[in-house]
Amino acid sequence: TIETCDGAVLPPPPQSNAPSETLEIDRGTPDAHVSRDSRMIRLTGVHPFNAEAPLTELFREGFLTTPELFFVRNHGVVPEVHDENVLDWEFTVDGMVETPLKITLQKLVAEYEQQTYPVTLVCAGNRRKEQNMVRKSKGFSWGPAGVSTALFTGVVMSDVVRRAKPRKGAKFVYMEGADKLPNGHYGTCVKLSWVLDPNRGIMLAYKMNGEMLRPDHGKPLRVVIPGQIGGRSVKWLKKLTITDQPSDNWYHIYDNRVLPTMISPEVAAEGSKWWTDERYAIHDLSPNSAIASPAHGERLRLLEGGDVYTARGYAYGGGGRRITRVEVSLDQGRTWRLARIQYVEDEYRKADRILYGGKLDFQWRDTSFCWCFWTLDIPVQEMSEAKDILVRCMDEGMCVQPRDVYWSVLGMMHNAWFRVAIMREADELRFEHPTQPALIPGGWMERVKAAGGDLTNGFWGEQISGLDAVRPAKP
Amino acid sequence: TIETCDGAVLPPPPQSNAPSETLEIDRGTPDAHVSRDSRMIRLTGVHPFNAEAPLTELFREGFLTTPELFFVRNHGVVPEVHDENVLDWEFTVDGMVETPLKITLQKLVAEYEQQTYPVTLVCAGNRRKEQNMVRKSKGFSWGPAGVSTALFTGVVMSDVVRRAKPRKGAKFVYMEGADKLPNGHYGTCVKLSWVLDPNRGIMLAYKMNGEMLRPDHGKPLRVVIPGQIGGRSVKWLKKLTITDQPSDNWYHIYDNRVLPTMISPEVAAEGSKWWTDERYAIHDLSPNSAIASPAHGERLRLLEGGDVYTARGYAYGGGGRRITRVEVSLDQGRTWRLARIQYVEDEYRKADRILYGGKLDFQWRDTSFCWCFWTLDIPVQEMSEAKDILVRCMDEGMCVQPRDVYWSVLGMMHNAWFRVAIMREADELRFEHPTQPALIPGGWMERVKAAGGDLTNGFWGEQISGLDAVRPAKP
Repeated sequence: TIETCDGAVLPPPPQSNAPSETLEIDRGTPDAHVSRDSRMIRLTGVHPFNAEAPLTELFREGFLTTPELFFVRNHGVVPEVHDENVLDWEFTVDGMVETPLKITLQKLVAEYEQQTYPVTLVCAGNRRKEQNMVRKSKGFSWGPAGVSTALFTGVVMSDVVRRAKPRKGAKFVYMEGADKLPNGHYGTCVKLSWVLDPNRGIMLAYKMNGEMLRPDHGKPLRVVIPGQIGGRSVKWLKKLTITDQPSDNWYHIYDNRVLPTMISPEVAAEGSKWWTDERYAIHDLSPNSAIASPAHGERLRLLEGGDVYTARGYAYGGGGRRITRVEVSLDQGRTWRLARIQYVEDEYRKADRILYGGKLDFQWRDTSFCWCFWTLDIPVQEMSEAKDILVRCMDEGMCVQPRDVYWSVLGMMHNAWFRVAIMREADELRFEHPTQPALIPGGWMERVKAAGGDLTNGFWGEQISGLDAVRPAKP
Repeated sequence: TIETCDGAVLPPPPQSNAPSETLEIDRGTPDAHVSRDSRMIRLTGVHPFNAEAPLTELFREGFLTTPELFFVRNHGVVPEVHDENVLDWEFTVDGMVETPLKITLQKLVAEYEQQTYPVTLVCAGNRRKEQNMVRKSKGFSWGPAGVSTALFTGVVMSDVVRRAKPRKGAKFVYMEGADKLPNGHYGTCVKLSWVLDPNRGIMLAYKMNGEMLRPDHGKPLRVVIPGQIGGRSVKWLKKLTITDQPSDNWYHIYDNRVLPTMISPEVAAEGSKWWTDERYAIHDLSPNSAIASPAHGERLRLLEGGDVYTARGYAYGGGGRRITRVEVSLDQGRTWRLARIQYVEDEYRKADRILYGGKLDFQWRDTSFCWCFWTLDIPVQEMSEAKDILVRCMDEGMCVQPRDVYWSVLGMMHNAWFRVAIMREADELRFEHPTQPALIPGGWMERVKAAGGDLTNGFWGEQISGLDAVRPAKP
């Protein structure tokens, strides 16, 4: 167990059962050296490996996720690094600096201050399946489990960058991985001012929940950028380059962007104009939430009154902003109930000790880097009379999740209200999530669409009766 | 004129005609020493003075606002400071510091680095009239002109605070003004980490557009917190106190909060529980926008086709986040058009010179502190077929303005899509804004409400036809 300075006990990481053998499905692929968990839902066929855990299993693990259920976004082949070579892994720091550096992992561990803290990573495509149901985007279909949390151990990136002494006019840090892809190495950038901001906590990590990073998560060294989309947290890190311009790496330009909603795939394909406008590059996450209980397909027996069902889910914000409220509606957004929020991250904030070889000490930090959990007790009677359960959250900047889908060509950052439909069947309620990940069928969006409903009519494609339109508001 | 280093010419501040005489209406009030502009719309009767300019006049001034049309939020009597005493104005820096300080304005000017940069201030109640139309809040009725921009000259607050040497554990800077109010002096706080962050640009200012602050704007010294609600930019500054806890000043607790939407005025009045939860305190602004042209009541003659109307308005973000897109819909949010955005602030970003005695040099800064202007050319034919013009913006954190009103007991931070209704009358189009400020009648919200429409039905209280509900989506 992990104790804080005030004697509270931190929740330990969930028990990991590191997969020890290559799955049948991975044999014969270039990733045959990687052992994986068979529960992971593959989103892009067999290879490359892009996968999320079943939402219920992810949620059961609690605040921290085991490396085997932690979502994975790989663009290509996983670099193979044997344990005996890990400490010799080398990366460079160059560009607009006084002192270019070559740093081995051994040196990084020996000569810099080591830190440990929890960070939630989220794929920019989390919940994309919902957006794909509205209109097919150019991205594959994440469910709502493209989000996971771990205790990362490593060195704050600013310690490394400052030692290289950035020159005047430097504005960005370009980060490049070892993964060789059709359009070059994976690479992207982050603002230098963010790297230097201690409240942003941008880190070079080599451990996850106390163990060496596994191959899918960047073994042996990756960037971890709290509060930003996972696509900026470059894995298998080989290079940091300080620049005065944003990255021109293919993956920086043509991935991880929210183009304006009216830009169709055809227009987007016409040229680079829409892609090179840095205003459309995604960095900070936006506020988002989902319902884990009731789960998709869950059934609830209607007994004689008095019963209460505890709905549960997660919420996260971006850019270090705390989620300040989570609200649930049973009447399609007319009225809302306030959910309780559990900020497990704040338990770690009370600690001041060494954990996994790193200093766990961030009480001084004002920002929030992790998902939080919400619960709400709902009388079963009221659920049985409702059409759906909606959830939305708001961050400390008073940004609230919207009702409307913001469709864009890459289908990223979907954060409309998460809706679970309630189907009354004899003496049971059956719950339907919006979608199921990947090509798995199921969910109310599919059903509504098949029935000819318009998913973007403001009411999830349900028929709107004249009565609804004149019901008095109770905001 | 003001030239940048690349030879471009910066727009000078609009011509100010400083009011030289006390208005009839202010005579006999405790503010009889303050000269004001008669165009300002008073929102709380005669006194205290809370006022905004007519939107069209504000907009006509352009990027910078004259002090006389710059919105004012006063809680009570305006402190009177004669010109000959201005340099002797003194404020203190105390609390958790090694070196408590007493600083006169003379010393602040003589011993610290002076800076000048443009900042947009916005009242947290901007656009509140719309929220009051949905349901009466405990706040008075701002229109959409509770926003103004000026070139502020002063000293970065961190320079002062660092000189006092904050002690370990310090987390907040409490700021107090000279205005004596029923519940004590006006005071509130901001996070110390934000004060110390150069990208946040928090400043102690004594000049506005090159002239000494006028009484309504904090003469002789005020705080200016870019990207945050105006309520944190304490005027007539007398005290900075470094603390480890957020402020318990009455105005910090009971003002400038967005309580959860289900908290009614009655529940909120029951006790302090809802008020002392710092998660509900507003700091950063949220993304917002409005339409200035067409103006309320403007008429457009329908001539034979081919004509184009240029719609115009403003947008702003919070926490230093840039507005990255502004979108306009003519079909109630089904499809959107991309507006052009003019970032006048970026013109100033190119400068590197002394202006009004302060260094104008913020090219290095990644954040945006000012409103931007958008324009969109719309064929008149299309406008004549539309019910309304909607505008929404998105910030660089991918937070977009929502369709739905987030009502709360203080009626703050209203940022739902701004809607101008189009009324076809014979051979003219007549435009209706949602409301008019204060108690001024007019606007489609009043009309819809009077007709029994439900303003929060997702379609602004308009009747929803079955046809609308099944129209195919073109996101």
